[in-house]
Amino acid sequence: MAFIVQKFGGSSVADAERIRRVAGIIADTYSDNNDVVVVLSAQGDMTDDLIEKANEINTHPSKREMDVLLSTGEQISIALMAMALEKMGMPVVSLTGWQIGMQTNSDYGNARIKKVTCERIRNELDKRRIVIVAGFQGVNRYDDITTLGRGGSDTTAVAIAAAMNADLCQIYTDVEGVYTCDPRKVPNARKLEEITFDEMLELASLGAQVLHNRSVEMAKRYNVNLEVLSSFVRKPGTKVKEVTKVEQTKISGIAKDVNVARIALIGLKDEPGIAFKVFRVMAKQKTNVDIILQSIGRGDTQDISFTVAKQDMEQATKSLREQQEIIGFKDLSVTDKIAKVSMVGAGMVNSSGIAVQMFEALFDAKINIHMISTSEIKVSVLVDEDEADRAIQAIHAKFFEA
Amino acid sequence: MAFIVQKFGGSSVADAERIRRVAGIIADTYSDNNDVVVVLSAQGDMTDDLIEKANEINTHPSKREMDVLLSTGEQISIALMAMALEKMGMPVVSLTGWQIGMQTNSDYGNARIKKVTCERIRNELDKRRIVIVAGFQGVNRYDDITTLGRGGSDTTAVAIAAAMNADLCQIYTDVEGVYTCDPRKVPNARKLEEITFDEMLELASLGAQVLHNRSVEMAKRYNVNLEVLSSFVRKPGTKVKEVTKVEQTKISGIAKDVNVARIALIGLKDEPGIAFKVFRVMAKQKTNVDIILQSIGRGDTQDISFTVAKQDMEQATKSLREQQEIIGFKDLSVTDKIAKVSMVGAGMVNSSGIAVQMFEALFDAKINIHMISTSEIKVSVLVDEDEADRAIQAIHAKFFEA
Repeated sequence: MAFIVQKFGGSSVADAERIRRVAGIIADTYSDNNDVVVVLSAQGDMTDDLIEKANEINTHPSKREMDVLLSTGEQISIALMAMALEKMGMPVVSLTGWQIGMQTNSDYGNARIKKVTCERIRNELDKRRIVIVAGFQGVNRYDDITTLGRGGSDTTAVAIAAAMNADLCQIYTDVEGVYTCDPRKVPNARKLEEITFDEMLELASLGAQVLHNRSVEMAKRYNVNLEVLSSFVRKPGTKVKEVTKVEQTKISGIAKDVNVARIALIGLKDEPGIAFKVFRVMAKQKTNVDIILQSIGRGDTQDISFTVAKQDMEQATKSLREQQEIIGFKDLSVTDKIAKVSMVGAGMVNSSGIAVQMFEALFDAKINIHMISTSEIKVSVLVDEDEADRAIQAIHAKFFEA
Repeated sequence: MAFIVQKFGGSSVADAERIRRVAGIIADTYSDNNDVVVVLSAQGDMTDDLIEKANEINTHPSKREMDVLLSTGEQISIALMAMALEKMGMPVVSLTGWQIGMQTNSDYGNARIKKVTCERIRNELDKRRIVIVAGFQGVNRYDDITTLGRGGSDTTAVAIAAAMNADLCQIYTDVEGVYTCDPRKVPNARKLEEITFDEMLELASLGAQVLHNRSVEMAKRYNVNLEVLSSFVRKPGTKVKEVTKVEQTKISGIAKDVNVARIALIGLKDEPGIAFKVFRVMAKQKTNVDIILQSIGRGDTQDISFTVAKQDMEQATKSLREQQEIIGFKDLSVTDKIAKVSMVGAGMVNSSGIAVQMFEALFDAKINIHMISTSEIKVSVLVDEDEADRAIQAIHAKFFEA
């Protein structure tokens, strides 16, 4: 008997047939004598439909009211799933964010979890019920409804698993696990049996889109055993843990991220405080900056290039232009026709020459590298967007298909 | 400055355009320096859509989960309305049933209100905000979501008006007020300026479908001033109060109800306890019985006829047949091809001959009466369903068009 938290995403509960299939997975887990808490997202396009409803009325509604609206999506999912399990004769109860005591701060639309009481969940488990919980939502200290933003349901699942000391937190999705590369782009991509939290973190932030970073970070902090697996195919997925037993492969995955724009500031003064002046502007508007490249000064000037998410490009450029005199740059160039290609692996740190092999693969494929960024378990390069798929194929072939 | 509770039904908030129109009414009321609490139903077909979603998965879901599902309908309405008011620059906040402390019993799907705290509403009004409240929903003492059943949003509005001593509770609907008869059937029907609670109670239960009985009963008990008016046309509606100033008309309205089935038990023993045996069966299955007619005994047998709502006909008949031996009737006949036509008026009680005039009107129109039931302010007759419209026209002509 184990205590298992299972999370199913929007595509897994998109219609009646899929809900029934998921109910089957849940019922089997419960019937194997496990305590089961299930976290659900809103159905398929439900969130988009609700946003459209709002936009017809107000294109800039307050985030508070948007959260009141959007949180209904998960509430619909949990009721329907409970009904599907009732139909199978299972003892079940559905609970919303406020009912499980999911307490967050007041950052509507992107709230952070402060505490999960879980008392109600515990009581229901004691009655041997399957507990179906609405993901993505909570309440702040004024009892107002909040939502957790992107990856919110994953985070809900991990938070409950952490707070209640679950044995396992299973994230069901529409892929069978974590792959060495995107299987749609690289047919030879292999499913990984295991991966470390740190590797997963790098892959998630690199656009692997299997698990959201927030949930992996939380799982790492509270040492929650994660498993990523498919709700469509019943087979083991990829385990995400602190330490993996397999050390044979030095790199665990290759990822591509096209949600990247590069901004270059040219002709900055070569004096202290320049970087501070530039990135203070970005911080003020809460724009995340990823790769930064500061050129070596040439005489009295230098250049700074950095990447931001595509949707931040316009605002970032505008703010920098407004501050042009204060920052003191001559020119600004910007492009979003680029992609970030990254290689991740915990084994990398103890193995020299990994990055070199990556560069060699790109050179052999005649792909030009614009920027390079490295960490202990990651090497990222910026390449032209239309060469990104060729780039991951070349790197994957070098490391996994030799 | 007054404190006004306004309730808008599902057709008044069915789409973006209607929501904007209603937002205009709310904003004007607020701008006239009033405290405004608004209660909303789910949008147009939303509830039906949700029920269909549920039926695809489970045709007999638990009422608890059904309430979790259905309560999302009103939550969507309040968020959208708040957004519409935000767009107009109005200070506004939306609140769900649990947020306003709408406490009910645990009769899911048809819960009774036990208490409304209203503390949160008061706080928001103190901040000079328009408060938009989800009707139809509450929470029981376990913090589970409940819904109030038919007419639930009207009841929510009246309960808040009662608990907070509002000056007026306006029920906005798609008709302009309470009429002497259904204007779609009787073109000469007149809108009433005022009507008493008791008259309204009789009309509501008779299928006038303007206000649900529960809300009128509650308004009467707590002496809440009601007004029924249109959300489409801006003019005064009908005031519902304890005593009306107008006494000139003896009857205030004529209503038709086709949701009626008649069950006749024939050849019962003429002995004490028979009525008890029959209606115990109905009470056990919570079937409301309306008109009862017990024939005078003929020798050793008698007949009992009574009416129930159409949807209860089948179950009622089945249960009675199962108990045939215990109750001891010879035959059972049942029909739903009938309608109840009623005349209501507080002035009736002091005026003899009103009922006779009604019967005369029906006689002149050659309409056969099957059963008659009278109270101090009401006369109801059962007629064939296909003669019901002619019946109300004939009666209306007699009393209002002379």
